[in-house]
Amino acid sequence: MSSQSEKADLLKKLHHRGRMLILPNIWDAAGASLLETLGYPAVATASAAISHAHGFEDGEHIPFDMLLSIVAQVVKAVNVPVTVDLETGYALDRATLKSNIRRLIAAGVAGINIEDTDLRTRELVPVNEQVEKLKLIRKVAEQENTRMFINARTDSFLLKNDMSQEERLAVAIERGKAYIDAGADGIYPIFAKEESAIKALVAALKVPLNVLAMPGTPDLDALQRLGVARVSFGPNVHKAMLATMRTMLQDVIKSTSHFPVTGYPATS
Amino acid sequence: MSSQSEKADLLKKLHHRGRMLILPNIWDAAGASLLETLGYPAVATASAAISHAHGFEDGEHIPFDMLLSIVAQVVKAVNVPVTVDLETGYALDRATLKSNIRRLIAAGVAGINIEDTDLRTRELVPVNEQVEKLKLIRKVAEQENTRMFINARTDSFLLKNDMSQEERLAVAIERGKAYIDAGADGIYPIFAKEESAIKALVAALKVPLNVLAMPGTPDLDALQRLGVARVSFGPNVHKAMLATMRTMLQDVIKSTSHFPVTGYPATS
Repeated sequence: MSSQSEKADLLKKLHHRGRMLILPNIWDAAGASLLETLGYPAVATASAAISHAHGFEDGEHIPFDMLLSIVAQVVKAVNVPVTVDLETGYALDRATLKSNIRRLIAAGVAGINIEDTDLRTRELVPVNEQVEKLKLIRKVAEQENTRMFINARTDSFLLKNDMSQEERLAVAIERGKAYIDAGADGIYPIFAKEESAIKALVAALKVPLNVLAMPGTPDLDALQRLGVARVSFGPNVHKAMLATMRTMLQDVIKSTSHFPVTGYPATS
Repeated sequence: MSSQSEKADLLKKLHHRGRMLILPNIWDAAGASLLETLGYPAVATASAAISHAHGFEDGEHIPFDMLLSIVAQVVKAVNVPVTVDLETGYALDRATLKSNIRRLIAAGVAGINIEDTDLRTRELVPVNEQVEKLKLIRKVAEQENTRMFINARTDSFLLKNDMSQEERLAVAIERGKAYIDAGADGIYPIFAKEESAIKALVAALKVPLNVLAMPGTPDLDALQRLGVARVSFGPNVHKAMLATMRTMLQDVIKSTSHFPVTGYPATS
């Protein structure tokens, strides 16, 4: 069993090996074990999936303690590094953010996503505010004598407003650079999907770029060719599973044939 | 929104309406919402599924607090009655059992499954011990001025030992009668699957009979004709979902086409 810092180092390496890191985000320990069994070298959570699974809206409505208890079990379930979607940090002040980061490190988390939306206004937080947040997270990890892969998400492509695609790209690059200076290990411009934008982001930002796979994004081979380091799926695996479950349970009144008692799929 | 006791009354009625209550057991709030949306009139949890989802072995290895937080969200997610698989009660003493039952009632749980396996020895607990447990649960509900549908599971067909099918049936009937006298509202002889055994159980026990759907059990129409009041799926929906997820994630390296970003299936 590797230490938290060894896992953080491995997670970082997986972003720099020249082969795209594919992270179909999961929401519980069983999903994490499944990914590890299938050979995925790291595991990422999706906050929207964890929240929705337990009846909460995304946007930090799930209590941090509940999120942490689920995340801790995810980490325990696998040997590969685990990176956690932390939304904006589940904290309205620096003391709470510090505490949350410390508790995630103590749970063995190797990396986090941290995003720059203001959840109250659904606008981008001022860039200097996010820079201070990233610096604080980096400092907490240093104080704990640990490494942690900080994937800084910038939401310029995500938010609903009247910005053009060109403006969104410019903001993502500007923020990406600022976040790298503040200590980010990777940049995640979620909802960037045009090939030209992805190409420009890879060229402008000298750290691993994370793309969300969604309708309209280039396929995985194309993303690899564009130099994307990491591809995420957000809550889409969870949505696909619930859609499948819906179909199964619509049929169950008629038949039990969907449910063989053959044990859980092997996960070790 | 109905009260906990109104939901317990409804859950009881659903066992006595002459149409089999079909409960594809779920493990989180999202699954509960899905069932309600599809028209299921009640929701049941599966302890094995909740445990496995979060990296715990079945058999009360998940902390009761974590189970309760998940169950509380299941109850909040739906208006239909929720019945919880409580294994043996997550308690080694009467005070803890009392506390657990009170907390489940406070969370709005309408019914429970309680089983007669000794988790340490994997043998049946002495019948009088289980009778005392059932009486205690009934008394706690009365003290709280609430109703609660107690589905008493007897594990004579489940446990691995050298008993014949005839002996297992005799034990299930003997225990079923004792549990009814102690206050059980329904009897759940898990792993009873032969038509003749199910018929004998329905005839001998004057409360609703719960059957686990598994390979070898009569189909749902046949169970209905036999007079079965309730059919459960245990962890089999969860197993089917993980098997599906395994197939999806094996393919994901090649394609993202399984994961349309089309929102969560409607659950309201």
